[in-house]
Amino acid sequence: MQPTTACLIVIGNEILSGRTQDKNLAWLAKALNEIGVKLAEARVIPDHAQTIIDTLNHCRKNFAYVFTTGGIGPTHDDITSLAIAAAFGVALERNKEAQEILARYYGAENLNAARLKMADIPAGAGLIANPVSAAPGFRIENVFVLAGVPSIMQAMFDGIKGELRGGAKTLSRAVSAYVTEGIIAESLAAIQNRHKAVEIGSYPFMRSGRLGTSLVTRATDATALAAAYEEIKTMLLAAAPEVIEEDLA
Amino acid sequence: MQPTTACLIVIGNEILSGRTQDKNLAWLAKALNEIGVKLAEARVIPDHAQTIIDTLNHCRKNFAYVFTTGGIGPTHDDITSLAIAAAFGVALERNKEAQEILARYYGAENLNAARLKMADIPAGAGLIANPVSAAPGFRIENVFVLAGVPSIMQAMFDGIKGELRGGAKTLSRAVSAYVTEGIIAESLAAIQNRHKAVEIGSYPFMRSGRLGTSLVTRATDATALAAAYEEIKTMLLAAAPEVIEEDLA
Repeated sequence: MQPTTACLIVIGNEILSGRTQDKNLAWLAKALNEIGVKLAEARVIPDHAQTIIDTLNHCRKNFAYVFTTGGIGPTHDDITSLAIAAAFGVALERNKEAQEILARYYGAENLNAARLKMADIPAGAGLIANPVSAAPGFRIENVFVLAGVPSIMQAMFDGIKGELRGGAKTLSRAVSAYVTEGIIAESLAAIQNRHKAVEIGSYPFMRSGRLGTSLVTRATDATALAAAYEEIKTMLLAAAPEVIEEDLA
Repeated sequence: MQPTTACLIVIGNEILSGRTQDKNLAWLAKALNEIGVKLAEARVIPDHAQTIIDTLNHCRKNFAYVFTTGGIGPTHDDITSLAIAAAFGVALERNKEAQEILARYYGAENLNAARLKMADIPAGAGLIANPVSAAPGFRIENVFVLAGVPSIMQAMFDGIKGELRGGAKTLSRAVSAYVTEGIIAESLAAIQNRHKAVEIGSYPFMRSGRLGTSLVTRATDATALAAAYEEIKTMLLAAAPEVIEEDLA
């Protein structure tokens, strides 16, 4: 059994300008893996309708699930819902259930036109609850449209993850040492060749001016993972004086 | 004059697994903006040859510049250079200049086969200096292939930024307050309508359990920016007791 694939589309000029550091990709990647869904690609795109439409229509055909974050608030630059309706060729219409949720949360007297915009949902979509600030996300076919604020996105995801049909969960183990990749590359390639069911990644890092390498093993089979991991750790200890970090998560 | 556009392709399973938090996007976005280049899109893709080829061939036709990070080291999972050669339909060949750089850095006696792999560069590419750890990046046409380790990527970029032909630099000012977007959305839309040369973004945030909003103005014209910004700040102060943060960078 293979993991199911997913793509994340991060929508927001503030990420592309470098002003805001995205935190949703890493969180979602880990949360998806827990239920056997593999984040296979991510795209960061601007708040631009045609770009959202084109990106969504490409990704929803190429991945089992698509998640979007950002652009579903009440302001003029929140155009995600409209663009997604256009991508699916359906109307963006006032959703009664969403309107009731907003009326309860804000009070009918505070439900101004801008806030009501958050009840405009593509026809045929199902709502995704927002336990933090009420305004819902939505699901349409294999696309899940979530808020951009990390705490809200996370709460929305926790509410819908039961709807996802995952495959095998990817297990991983990592070990790091102050040794440069070139020293161990040939031994590592030999280990990779002996353990084809395990994906072995080598990631250089720099800490306090010293170059080191993290070796990460990933597999859906725990026994295969452990076998490759032990070979890698033994090899690494032969090349470096000590392991500086071991992550058995 | 419009800013020149760029796309960043982050190559690496470790980013998509959520194990490593990407820091290159935000840094590069700001560094590019300094020279009038706008990061218009970013993609995060796995260490998978066909995905790299397809993504690169799409992006290099659609953006003035493309930057890639990751996958140019000595280990078996470093396949970026090979994939980029394939995308351009050129050979990956041993580059004499790169080989000399590596021989000087490691010493000829330590230049093993794995390290020599880092001298394999697509035919016709120009080298990009790596002042941190020697192994070069490269430029081929409008594509700049950089290391994934942030400190190395940054040093490489600083060396080549003089080659880029930028357009207008995007200026920005931001102001934040504890007010929810729905309160100010209509006023903000009116300001946006009066200042069409300024891009106004509204970004909700949550700090210590309180919802707030950051309003960001972006424009290439400083006078237009200042006019919109002052209107926004006045409007925000009318809705919120105090401004909690003002960023005039």
